[in-house]
Amino acid sequence: MGMKKKILIINGPNLNLLGTREQDIYGTRTLDDMKELLLRGAQTIAVDLDFFQSNIEGDIINYLHRNRDADGIVINPAAFTHTSVAIRDAIAAIQVPAVEVHISNIHAREEFRRVSFIAPVCIGQISGFGIHSYQLGLEGLISYLDSNA
Amino acid sequence: MGMKKKILIINGPNLNLLGTREQDIYGTRTLDDMKELLLRGAQTIAVDLDFFQSNIEGDIINYLHRNRDADGIVINPAAFTHTSVAIRDAIAAIQVPAVEVHISNIHAREEFRRVSFIAPVCIGQISGFGIHSYQLGLEGLISYLDSNA
Amino acid sequence: MGMKKKILIINGPNLNLLGTREQDIYGTRTLDDMKELLLRGAQTIAVDLDFFQSNIEGDIINYLHRNRDADGIVINPAAFTHTSVAIRDAIAAIQVPAVEVHISNIHAREEFRRVSFIAPVCIGQISGFGIHSYQLGLEGLISYLDSNA
Amino acid sequence: MGMKKKILIINGPNLNLLGTREQDIYGTRTLDDMKELLLRGAQTIAVDLDFFQSNIEGDIINYLHRNRDADGIVINPAAFTHTSVAIRDAIAAIQVPAVEVHISNIHAREEFRRVSFIAPVCIGQISGFGIHSYQLGLEGLISYLDSNA
Amino acid sequence: MGMKKKILIINGPNLNLLGTREQDIYGTRTLDDMKELLLRGAQTIAVDLDFFQSNIEGDIINYLHRNRDADGIVINPAAFTHTSVAIRDAIAAIQVPAVEVHISNIHAREEFRRVSFIAPVCIGQISGFGIHSYQLGLEGLISYLDSNA
Amino acid sequence: MGMKKKILIINGPNLNLLGTREQDIYGTRTLDDMKELLLRGAQTIAVDLDFFQSNIEGDIINYLHRNRDADGIVINPAAFTHTSVAIRDAIAAIQVPAVEVHISNIHAREEFRRVSFIAPVCIGQISGFGIHSYQLGLEGLISYLDSNA
Amino acid sequence: MGMKKKILIINGPNLNLLGTREQDIYGTRTLDDMKELLLRGAQTIAVDLDFFQSNIEGDIINYLHRNRDADGIVINPAAFTHTSVAIRDAIAAIQVPAVEVHISNIHAREEFRRVSFIAPVCIGQISGFGIHSYQLGLEGLISYLDSNA
Amino acid sequence: MGMKKKILIINGPNLNLLGTREQDIYGTRTLDDMKELLLRGAQTIAVDLDFFQSNIEGDIINYLHRNRDADGIVINPAAFTHTSVAIRDAIAAIQVPAVEVHISNIHAREEFRRVSFIAPVCIGQISGFGIHSYQLGLEGLISYLDSNA
Amino acid sequence: MGMKKKILIINGPNLNLLGTREQDIYGTRTLDDMKELLLRGAQTIAVDLDFFQSNIEGDIINYLHRNRDADGIVINPAAFTHTSVAIRDAIAAIQVPAVEVHISNIHAREEFRRVSFIAPVCIGQISGFGIHSYQLGLEGLISYLDSNA
Amino acid sequence: MGMKKKILIINGPNLNLLGTREQDIYGTRTLDDMKELLLRGAQTIAVDLDFFQSNIEGDIINYLHRNRDADGIVINPAAFTHTSVAIRDAIAAIQVPAVEVHISNIHAREEFRRVSFIAPVCIGQISGFGIHSYQLGLEGLISYLDSNA
Amino acid sequence: MGMKKKILIINGPNLNLLGTREQDIYGTRTLDDMKELLLRGAQTIAVDLDFFQSNIEGDIINYLHRNRDADGIVINPAAFTHTSVAIRDAIAAIQVPAVEVHISNIHAREEFRRVSFIAPVCIGQISGFGIHSYQLGLEGLISYLDSNA
Amino acid sequence: MGMKKKILIINGPNLNLLGTREQDIYGTRTLDDMKELLLRGAQTIAVDLDFFQSNIEGDIINYLHRNRDADGIVINPAAFTHTSVAIRDAIAAIQVPAVEVHISNIHAREEFRRVSFIAPVCIGQISGFGIHSYQLGLEGLISYLDSNA
Repeated sequence: MGMKKKILIINGPNLNLLGTREQDIYGTRTLDDMKELLLRGAQTIAVDLDFFQSNIEGDIINYLHRNRDADGIVINPAAFTHTSVAIRDAIAAIQVPAVEVHISNIHAREEFRRVSFIAPVCIGQISGFGIHSYQLGLEGLISYLDSNA
Repeated sequence: MGMKKKILIINGPNLNLLGTREQDIYGTRTLDDMKELLLRGAQTIAVDLDFFQSNIEGDIINYLHRNRDADGIVINPAAFTHTSVAIRDAIAAIQVPAVEVHISNIHAREEFRRVSFIAPVCIGQISGFGIHSYQLGLEGLISYLDSNA
Repeated sequence: MGMKKKILIINGPNLNLLGTREQDIYGTRTLDDMKELLLRGAQTIAVDLDFFQSNIEGDIINYLHRNRDADGIVINPAAFTHTSVAIRDAIAAIQVPAVEVHISNIHAREEFRRVSFIAPVCIGQISGFGIHSYQLGLEGLISYLDSNA
Repeated sequence: MGMKKKILIINGPNLNLLGTREQDIYGTRTLDDMKELLLRGAQTIAVDLDFFQSNIEGDIINYLHRNRDADGIVINPAAFTHTSVAIRDAIAAIQVPAVEVHISNIHAREEFRRVSFIAPVCIGQISGFGIHSYQLGLEGLISYLDSNA
Repeated sequence: MGMKKKILIINGPNLNLLGTREQDIYGTRTLDDMKELLLRGAQTIAVDLDFFQSNIEGDIINYLHRNRDADGIVINPAAFTHTSVAIRDAIAAIQVPAVEVHISNIHAREEFRRVSFIAPVCIGQISGFGIHSYQLGLEGLISYLDSNA
Repeated sequence: MGMKKKILIINGPNLNLLGTREQDIYGTRTLDDMKELLLRGAQTIAVDLDFFQSNIEGDIINYLHRNRDADGIVINPAAFTHTSVAIRDAIAAIQVPAVEVHISNIHAREEFRRVSFIAPVCIGQISGFGIHSYQLGLEGLISYLDSNA
Repeated sequence: MGMKKKILIINGPNLNLLGTREQDIYGTRTLDDMKELLLRGAQTIAVDLDFFQSNIEGDIINYLHRNRDADGIVINPAAFTHTSVAIRDAIAAIQVPAVEVHISNIHAREEFRRVSFIAPVCIGQISGFGIHSYQLGLEGLISYLDSNA
Repeated sequence: MGMKKKILIINGPNLNLLGTREQDIYGTRTLDDMKELLLRGAQTIAVDLDFFQSNIEGDIINYLHRNRDADGIVINPAAFTHTSVAIRDAIAAIQVPAVEVHISNIHAREEFRRVSFIAPVCIGQISGFGIHSYQLGLEGLISYLDSNA
Repeated sequence: MGMKKKILIINGPNLNLLGTREQDIYGTRTLDDMKELLLRGAQTIAVDLDFFQSNIEGDIINYLHRNRDADGIVINPAAFTHTSVAIRDAIAAIQVPAVEVHISNIHAREEFRRVSFIAPVCIGQISGFGIHSYQLGLEGLISYLDSNA
Repeated sequence: MGMKKKILIINGPNLNLLGTREQDIYGTRTLDDMKELLLRGAQTIAVDLDFFQSNIEGDIINYLHRNRDADGIVINPAAFTHTSVAIRDAIAAIQVPAVEVHISNIHAREEFRRVSFIAPVCIGQISGFGIHSYQLGLEGLISYLDSNA
Repeated sequence: MGMKKKILIINGPNLNLLGTREQDIYGTRTLDDMKELLLRGAQTIAVDLDFFQSNIEGDIINYLHRNRDADGIVINPAAFTHTSVAIRDAIAAIQVPAVEVHISNIHAREEFRRVSFIAPVCIGQISGFGIHSYQLGLEGLISYLDSNA
Repeated sequence: MGMKKKILIINGPNLNLLGTREQDIYGTRTLDDMKELLLRGAQTIAVDLDFFQSNIEGDIINYLHRNRDADGIVINPAAFTHTSVAIRDAIAAIQVPAVEVHISNIHAREEFRRVSFIAPVCIGQISGFGIHSYQLGLEGLISYLDSNA
């Protein structure tokens, strides 16, 4: 607890296009805006944030494996939310507490976006607050880690 | 914006027992703990919080109607999440921005708890962070209201 | 038949907001407009209309029980249409002929609004004609009562 | 509005047998009784009624196409209600306001009779009032046309 | 019983091609072979057979209506078996005892061929015996009529 | 065990009409008959029976909360059996042993009556024995409490 | 063909009660009546009929195995129709042509009676003609054997 | 009524192992304990109990047929509850009033254990009270027989 | 191959209204525009095009039967795509290679438009290119015929 | 471990015909070939093999009960795999480690063969290796027993 | 329009094996044949074709992102058609008009191949014409681009 | 046969963590333990084993393509079992005999783990024997290759 917590901020497919892509659904803020937002907030709390984005499911798994020593995860699995048993298994395997976040409200979109393979192995799920979802996810994670320390 | 925002904090059925009920699922914190947590946080932001709990679906609807002038809603519909079209319609009817929150991670429980009638008419959904879910929900709501002011 | 028929006009949840709520779906006419429309029409036929609205499912059941001596019912169960086995059972229990009406065309909206628990225990169902649905429902009911007198 | 409205009264398969067919479900009144009922009612309002019945799905479509200049439609699609995407498309194609009517209460019969392909492209649906359903349908249509004139 | 019974032998779509069409499924015998088979068998029993084939659903309904005075029906609805509520309703409407027959074993083919809209309003169903299915159907019908005379 | 056990006898919607309502399904005995039957039986065993009936889901929940000190529950949730997650959660929350009873055999009625949200959080379920179901339920409950004392 | 064909007539569970059991569904004729009916008909054709009835699924399978030298089978699997993969496999295994018959019209009864595990491995299925179904089944079988001799 | 009633107590597959098998689900009491419990209770009422257990579905059917003269049945079909149409048909065929009982609460176990083929042809169903379920079932049966005598 | 190929261009229900009907979905080009487009393209290849449109399912079947000598078919079954087993069977019966085409992208519309009864008996399916779909279909057909000549 | 392990080799319905039955699916090897194969392999390990085959579900259950002292089970439930809750319960009841084996690859056949009621109460499942599946099953079982000794 | 259009030709998993793989389904033509076919056709129109194949879902997404400046896409997603929400989202994100093509007729194969996650975000879908599907897809795309230029 | 057979041993996502990951489900043995186990066994038979693990679906496909000359495959697709049509297609495409293996008993876990996209294109499936599943899979494969040599 004297040491800084290491938190992974993971982004799934197409999120690298954030801010330029379908702005009516995903807004105009970019991944860099999100990064800056989190870093600013992180100054006051003892966390190291490690940012990662990939469009390749297996790269995300590899990243998760490489960082098994992390204290927590904030992950926006994007499209993989609804299709990836492998990422679900990876999170369960490394047993690092994770929070699933979404920029849009996935419960108000196509039917197939309402079910998540990932959420059942996470602490919780946050969706619908734009890039602010990451900030809320990080706070929720910290609060969880603190009360389970 | 010079005036304080009026925010409704609504709790559905059985949440009055919080802290005493199935503590392995819902934790040991009570509704009063939650209230205190929110009020403490609310001091630094210009909001008035109005707390309401009922086990009667229609009372929640009546409360929503009576408070149509509110600026935002944080609602934990509890069991009504999965059965109440009427509360869904009430939120849609009064058109006050709402956030759905859950203490437990509803995506990791019985199948019937994974689908929400309410979430599609909300800004977003937050689940799994204990009473901290309300705090995150309030923050998400404020942030939404600010960026849509 | 020399006596006036007693007809119940029952409105389910959120219909008290009629005319102010989602006007693209439900129109600009209020419950009072509906009331006036029915009363005007009722002058020429020997009926007493009793109006009731509640957002509480059980209050509607209580009202139905209290008025078991009625000759007929026009009911817009609103959201309860799709969720209330209890109101279905209440209508079946008191055995007063009932007509189910809807302001909007429920067959052209969300999938879950297409199925009614109430309609199978009614004479028939009318949906899609705005507040005029009540008038048609009342006429249909009167015509049914006359031909079954 | 100075001119009479042209209204199509369309009957689907087997309705030519009305009054002689399964009287416990469909009653003893014939299509001619219905015709007379509507014509009598139509005297006081400025409408021309055109009656059509066919057991052939495509003939109904042809009739709809030929009468694209009509002001409104009252259609009892009978069995085609549950199977004809083609009549649905025809009504959507000619964009004449239509009302779907049924003699029996289709919501209280076999499961497959509860879903209508036609209703979603209509103003509304009326079922369960015997041949009176047509009269209610015509009224509902006129009222719709008047308020959208 | 002193008079000859009038029996309708009805064939649905594509059966006019029998014997030339997909011979591995439907065999090499034609509708004329079937006709001859039935007529030969019918000599010893007092029945008049009336043969009808159409590819138009509504024509079959019209034929059924025109021949409401028949004593019985042997019908191979072919593809309409699985899609025609209208023919089902026509048979139910005229209340002439009917037997559903199929050349191929519909229970051993595509999933959608296993369910019949027509069979529930018939005495019974026979499938899988080539054109002999008609002969069996006729016998079954006669036997039914005799025991219900 | 020296003290009398407190047992709640709870009745859901429309059961106040018992004995007057659809007698072919529910019989001619009233709630008072049931009360008398139970009280007579209860004389020989050390139990205090508290009777409650409401048509309002939330009132039943409130009653359950108020009586959390009870030793056991016999509940006929009636229509709420199939729709109320909230009552299920209430019983699970207060952790008082409960038995679900039904007057009619719910497994021999409409499809939707075969599934219970309540039964999985109860000791067991009894259905089909008229008002005698309550007596059997009470006995089953006592026997359960005795063997778990 | 100079030799008599050996045909198995197999009856599944509860058919031993035929004629005494639910007469509105199954009629008043007994298995012996059926036997006599078939034997009378069989005199004119060169077949030996072997009758078997059992309420034990495995006994029917054993009987099928023991009689693998048979030329054909008429089987009324009764309740096993809808549940026995084992009898289906037995018929497929011994590769003796079989006809499935039913006394009642299984397509007009409970939903679960509409699907047969057995029919897909048979020549065809006959249902609805009382004990006459067996006679029709035998004829259909003979006709099949003759044309495939 | 001067004569003793003959009641069958039937146990399905694996119940012979009761008391030794999965004690967390089925308890430590054996079939003999159950027998003794029922016999003790039966002394005060004029019934003869006949006990039967088999792991063979068809033997249960044979037993039911042999004992068609019985006045009532208490049956725990165990695994056959969810798979045996044949036992359902046997009970319906002999028309002896039957009660279905279960030791464990089948509504709180695997999904496939929630549906019973047998219950719809019984007076009612009792589940969850250990071997006491038989006693309750017997009482419920006697009470049914008395009120229908 | 020295002879011109005979190709049928078949249009299902409501396509006669093309260009005037729901232009946002189906565009402004008419069937005549399509005809002209195909004929222009056909000049350079040795094909005779025969155009047919009908709103009557059976007429399309009759037309297919009459033209069994054709070398290929381009068919837009329109609404019949999703409901006509009979046209499916007709194409399978005459064994003329067929291509299914659609003006709109049926995979991006209502759920029920995504499944085709016809496509499984065709060479392939083309949808979404306006009247150009026919041209692509014709090319695909020609290419298929050439490589299978 | 000084003593020989007792292993049951159980075969379900129709497997007595192995080698003569549908050889394209099940191969030409018989149960005796399998027996010999296992016995040969068993010489080198300290196991006693007890072979059992029955076409009667209940006989398999009886055999399982009689041999509750066994150390392990290799079972090919054949058709009962997909229909027998009773065998599932028997294996769970006697708590002897079991391995489910199949000759054919059940995952590559009819849809209904993909789900097993038995596998969830077994150590594992092996399918697709002909009679070699038994050998693999035995090895897997031994290896399991050794590592759990 | 004076400049050449840039068109991406994308191939999903296993298509690199085209021509050598399951030739009865996919034919004998290779990806190079396809390339040559398209290039030959492309000479007469002003397009630059860029060919890409990958077995890695994320590589296809990366390729799509890198080439966001393209004018159009012809994509054969192969197996990813039925599983990749991520590619769907990528195409929607970059908003370049796309056509989905398939070598085989996916509507005539396994059930799971009939539904496409990709098609709803494309102009249209073409399947069943071997490598000619690409050529048709390219034509369809060009025609679309021309009419929307 | 004089040459050594080349066998691929392929491991899907997260299996690199074997032995350290969720030990209650997957055990304490690592991939290296498995490797050693197989190599030891392989000494006595003429096989070359090639080990491969990847968390990237497409890498597994590439590996399969590169090794199309292999004689056989033992594959544990892990999470890809339930989601990867692409690996299924790759195995079907290269037509190298494959065996699917699983460490845990997938038939005893979450519902979604019971269905495999891969198994239908394999010789067979083995699940539940820990790392011994690989050994059994290899044996089964060798036995298959030998009998099909």
